[in-house]
Amino acid sequence: MNTVIRFDNDYTEGAHPRILERLLETNLEQTPGYGTDRYCDHARELIRCAADAPEAGVHFLVGGTQVNFILIRAALMPHQAVISPVTGHINVHETGAVEATGHKILPVPCGKEGKPTAEQVEVMVYEHYHGPTPPEHTVQPQLVYISQPTENGALYTLSELTALHEVCRRYGLLLFADGARLGYGLASPQADVTLAHMARLTDAFTIGGTKCGALFGEALVISNPALNRDFRYAIKQNGAMLAKGRLLGLQFEALFEDGLYFEICGQAVQKAFVLRDALLAAGFEEYAPSPTNQQFFIFPEEIAAKLSEKYAFSDWETLPQGRRAMRVCTSWATKEENVAALLRDIAACAVK
Amino acid sequence: MNTVIRFDNDYTEGAHPRILERLLETNLEQTPGYGTDRYCDHARELIRCAADAPEAGVHFLVGGTQVNFILIRAALMPHQAVISPVTGHINVHETGAVEATGHKILPVPCGKEGKPTAEQVEVMVYEHYHGPTPPEHTVQPQLVYISQPTENGALYTLSELTALHEVCRRYGLLLFADGARLGYGLASPQADVTLAHMARLTDAFTIGGTKCGALFGEALVISNPALNRDFRYAIKQNGAMLAKGRLLGLQFEALFEDGLYFEICGQAVQKAFVLRDALLAAGFEEYAPSPTNQQFFIFPEEIAAKLSEKYAFSDWETLPQGRRAMRVCTSWATKEENVAALLRDIAACAVK
Amino acid sequence: MNTVIRFDNDYTEGAHPRILERLLETNLEQTPGYGTDRYCDHARELIRCAADAPEAGVHFLVGGTQVNFILIRAALMPHQAVISPVTGHINVHETGAVEATGHKILPVPCGKEGKPTAEQVEVMVYEHYHGPTPPEHTVQPQLVYISQPTENGALYTLSELTALHEVCRRYGLLLFADGARLGYGLASPQADVTLAHMARLTDAFTIGGTKCGALFGEALVISNPALNRDFRYAIKQNGAMLAKGRLLGLQFEALFEDGLYFEICGQAVQKAFVLRDALLAAGFEEYAPSPTNQQFFIFPEEIAAKLSEKYAFSDWETLPQGRRAMRVCTSWATKEENVAALLRDIAACAVK
Amino acid sequence: MNTVIRFDNDYTEGAHPRILERLLETNLEQTPGYGTDRYCDHARELIRCAADAPEAGVHFLVGGTQVNFILIRAALMPHQAVISPVTGHINVHETGAVEATGHKILPVPCGKEGKPTAEQVEVMVYEHYHGPTPPEHTVQPQLVYISQPTENGALYTLSELTALHEVCRRYGLLLFADGARLGYGLASPQADVTLAHMARLTDAFTIGGTKCGALFGEALVISNPALNRDFRYAIKQNGAMLAKGRLLGLQFEALFEDGLYFEICGQAVQKAFVLRDALLAAGFEEYAPSPTNQQFFIFPEEIAAKLSEKYAFSDWETLPQGRRAMRVCTSWATKEENVAALLRDIAACAVK
Repeated sequence: MNTVIRFDNDYTEGAHPRILERLLETNLEQTPGYGTDRYCDHARELIRCAADAPEAGVHFLVGGTQVNFILIRAALMPHQAVISPVTGHINVHETGAVEATGHKILPVPCGKEGKPTAEQVEVMVYEHYHGPTPPEHTVQPQLVYISQPTENGALYTLSELTALHEVCRRYGLLLFADGARLGYGLASPQADVTLAHMARLTDAFTIGGTKCGALFGEALVISNPALNRDFRYAIKQNGAMLAKGRLLGLQFEALFEDGLYFEICGQAVQKAFVLRDALLAAGFEEYAPSPTNQQFFIFPEEIAAKLSEKYAFSDWETLPQGRRAMRVCTSWATKEENVAALLRDIAACAVK
Repeated sequence: MNTVIRFDNDYTEGAHPRILERLLETNLEQTPGYGTDRYCDHARELIRCAADAPEAGVHFLVGGTQVNFILIRAALMPHQAVISPVTGHINVHETGAVEATGHKILPVPCGKEGKPTAEQVEVMVYEHYHGPTPPEHTVQPQLVYISQPTENGALYTLSELTALHEVCRRYGLLLFADGARLGYGLASPQADVTLAHMARLTDAFTIGGTKCGALFGEALVISNPALNRDFRYAIKQNGAMLAKGRLLGLQFEALFEDGLYFEICGQAVQKAFVLRDALLAAGFEEYAPSPTNQQFFIFPEEIAAKLSEKYAFSDWETLPQGRRAMRVCTSWATKEENVAALLRDIAACAVK
Repeated sequence: MNTVIRFDNDYTEGAHPRILERLLETNLEQTPGYGTDRYCDHARELIRCAADAPEAGVHFLVGGTQVNFILIRAALMPHQAVISPVTGHINVHETGAVEATGHKILPVPCGKEGKPTAEQVEVMVYEHYHGPTPPEHTVQPQLVYISQPTENGALYTLSELTALHEVCRRYGLLLFADGARLGYGLASPQADVTLAHMARLTDAFTIGGTKCGALFGEALVISNPALNRDFRYAIKQNGAMLAKGRLLGLQFEALFEDGLYFEICGQAVQKAFVLRDALLAAGFEEYAPSPTNQQFFIFPEEIAAKLSEKYAFSDWETLPQGRRAMRVCTSWATKEENVAALLRDIAACAVK
Repeated sequence: MNTVIRFDNDYTEGAHPRILERLLETNLEQTPGYGTDRYCDHARELIRCAADAPEAGVHFLVGGTQVNFILIRAALMPHQAVISPVTGHINVHETGAVEATGHKILPVPCGKEGKPTAEQVEVMVYEHYHGPTPPEHTVQPQLVYISQPTENGALYTLSELTALHEVCRRYGLLLFADGARLGYGLASPQADVTLAHMARLTDAFTIGGTKCGALFGEALVISNPALNRDFRYAIKQNGAMLAKGRLLGLQFEALFEDGLYFEICGQAVQKAFVLRDALLAAGFEEYAPSPTNQQFFIFPEEIAAKLSEKYAFSDWETLPQGRRAMRVCTSWATKEENVAALLRDIAACAVK
């Protein structure tokens, strides 16, 4: 039956063993609810410290779609809109969660890397205020949504992120970065953006747990104090305030206490690079270059089919001429033996 | 000072004199409120009769943005979305009113005519259910929004409209046509779609009053009984139930009692054709061909500037090489003498 | 057939003749749309002047439910709520329009006058922050909604309104007054609150046109600059920006140019007082005392039925022991002859 | 420092050990996401079987506020409202989550038990359609929300629940029961309502995990097929689709595989009864009688203060004459030794 080896995403397993240990150890402790316990407090301190952001608000939520729409809903007035790459997760994979809170998404075209530029943002804002349509007949751009890494695994460089930060400041926009896979981005050898940069250059960003070693959970770091002020109301109103907050606090405590988050994400990126190199060596073409744990490659249909008998990948796009783009994804939980098996099978179907 | 002659849109003047007469005659009559008066009842009957739709619900609302978002809000469940031409009025000129009710708009690329095809709709629905993303991770397409005429003055043919109707039936979608300028569409010599076709082939459509002879007001005709059932709640909840409903009823009564609506819109289209022919004769290029009261032409910047000293047009698009697309618009109120003046000035700046 | 004389509400007729004259005179003028014409500008100036509020924003909308929910939606963040008298129009007669924008109404119990006190507001706010439930588990009170006059025709005194103003300032709440019948309140001989007080003591209030001489229309006066800043987006997004804004501007121009608004409302209140005195003299009991154009009286069922053969009143409440509370309402359009007829019939059914 | 023994609620500890064991055992299994794994499938089967509802939809969500507003949002059209006891959790403890989705709550007065009757529902619906206000000027009641047990620990009897079911069927309303503490209700010696009754008599109900032995999680059982049809879209859109669905599935699997849910909840109710009997014996008065794990007692302030040095209870209401209502709550995790300690201290402060 279902015995394929999964490389299709980075949330197929549970949590890093150190997290489970803590769950067990603390299971019968009595703690106050809703994120007011000491594990949450400690985890907040660890994250503020790691991000060099002693004043930031830190909130723990369960999932990525949840944290995205709640932050955006709390940040915008009803007539305001989100600028997002057309391929942004909020635009194409979250069942219209942002629109369901009343806000239009203004999609920015972007290449395969999925990174809108500061210039594109500037043009969009300029057009709103100076185009042929009176501004109030269209939604007011107010928040820029990006992800780090992007949907296609790419990374903003420090200079790109700084440029976005500056254009947002210049026009009074907020900058929000979805870091569902932030660990893999920070741990990439190509990264020049650190956690402290994230905190300094955005108004809010998330540190993904679900895909980076936790059972579930996203830490939301809010540097902008106005945005943080009543944020707990937003969490509760949208059904995202976990009764047993301890469960979130202790996971992030484990991840940030001694660098576990960076360590396990770095290992996953290394495994992804091994696979990438093997795929390139075997003559397959990159769909989009990625310095993180997701690799995107183009396969002839028959090879895709053959590999799929033994492995699960994610279908990404059907391409002309009998080709198919697939995502090959590692995670903190990827086993060496599975990487080895896949390497053998890649070599066996090399096209050069 | 502001003595330009306005051809920029079709709502710069008040109402056809026959409407004002009735306002005066009935001003001190005491009528029950909220559209339950006999003028509204009579106007409903006239419209049902003109549309050969004896069972249709007919509701009178004040404005176009209002009627669009209220109908769409009432038609959809929270996870459902609207398919709209990318240039659709709801997508670009209504301040995100549809998204403000919680629904995503799925834009369909379309040429300058602004008419998505039945095939495009079918592909979009197919992709939703059979693409690589599980359906529930994206919004469910449920209603197709079109306008007749389109934003660029084009008309659906009967066969195109029938094809849309059929694809909607096949996939359980609703079809809604925004008829803010429907009068000009019905009265075009090129039209083969009648009011009865509109009623038979859509689930709901509007008959615009504001731009077609009334002070204000849009008649919404709902052929789909499920959609009509509780619609008065939707009108009231969204602040669109006019206390003195008589004002809307008597306007549509005047427009539909003896064909006034068709007559005055037909005259406007004729005037638009006179201007179009003169513009073509003077060597200007059409931006998009239009068989209705809006004409779209491309002018060199300096000629656009010169004409704008005396006339108001609508800026439509800035084009490369110092050119500009402008909308030249007639209405039921356009004066012969103003047309004559513009014809002279067009001839004077002919480019061939 | 329907030949009853209507005293059931104050919106059964059209508009004051002076308004219709202006509609006729200006009908074929070409004006820019959406409230940017000179009639709107002039009307804004007249209102700012009458309210001694030279910096206030003034916007013209079509209806009362519309203006209420749009102002409230624009004023609140998603987790914030409205404090309203339990009998407030927004709480019981607007089809949940406020909740439909996402905001809970916190009802304050109040007597028949429908006036919550400053103390009640203070207690509610205190309880939110200091009650047994953590604040973020309940909605945050942020705006106090009142009406002047209230639903039952009562008036806030200057000292009551000042106390509400002060409690709102103390706790950072906004104060919004629904003035759908404000003219009748300002023109009451018992009033000590002026238009200037309204502008100074509230963050926003409306000046009702629909029930006070206009065909339709409410002027919204916003004293709070933060609330005013992007308000035109809110108008447009919610379908309340009338294309032919001139229609609203010239109505308020006519009403405020030479005191017409106050004059015609004052006459209506006088007629209401004549009816009230006759009803009291005939031995009927007041349901709630009212110094404005709405009078509320208790009738035995059989007398109510008898009067209803000739007159329309509004059913207000079914009371024990075969009695019924009814609203008897005059307006700017109430004819002397109809008052005289009703006086005769009241006398004829006197109970003492 | 914080060494009080907590009886303040039933979510202070983690999960039943059997659940943690399964988390550990399955941690490195690779499973597909979003609730499509075999643990979820098995748990669904177990629940359908236990509820004798082979056709019901079963969905696993993370939290109670979340499941309440998502179900209600998915069940209602925008003009429709929820009938809820005035003390209902959605009305007073969920930060306006239901209103934030656009729906008004119509509160029904109810005694301390928090149980509206079928008659009250019937009157409310009748008034909507036949009261003095036209129906469309108020929200349309469409769903009845109850909880089993109620906020004050009371239980609907089978005949009460049947009456509610029948009135809902008669008027076309939906019936939704919030079972955040359903286990304690089903396991009460006074219960005559079973899981099968819940499934047969409601359109949807929840089986609470968070307060009944799980780390987190609520199982939503939807008997009404129309409501179930597109429900996964609603889960995803509202950020409630857990990526690692296995975590929810295996918890409910553990709870329902061999009756663990009923067993541990029954033990908690027994402990609550021991405490109740001791409190009564010591002369304290019940605030509201409860046959479930929550007990509500009235204490003189000084005794409340004294007990609070050693134990945490929930403040419920401040009463006149220096008294205070407190909630004393047991759970599946309540230790015998803590009960024994509390029993001693209750006896020591007996008032008779």
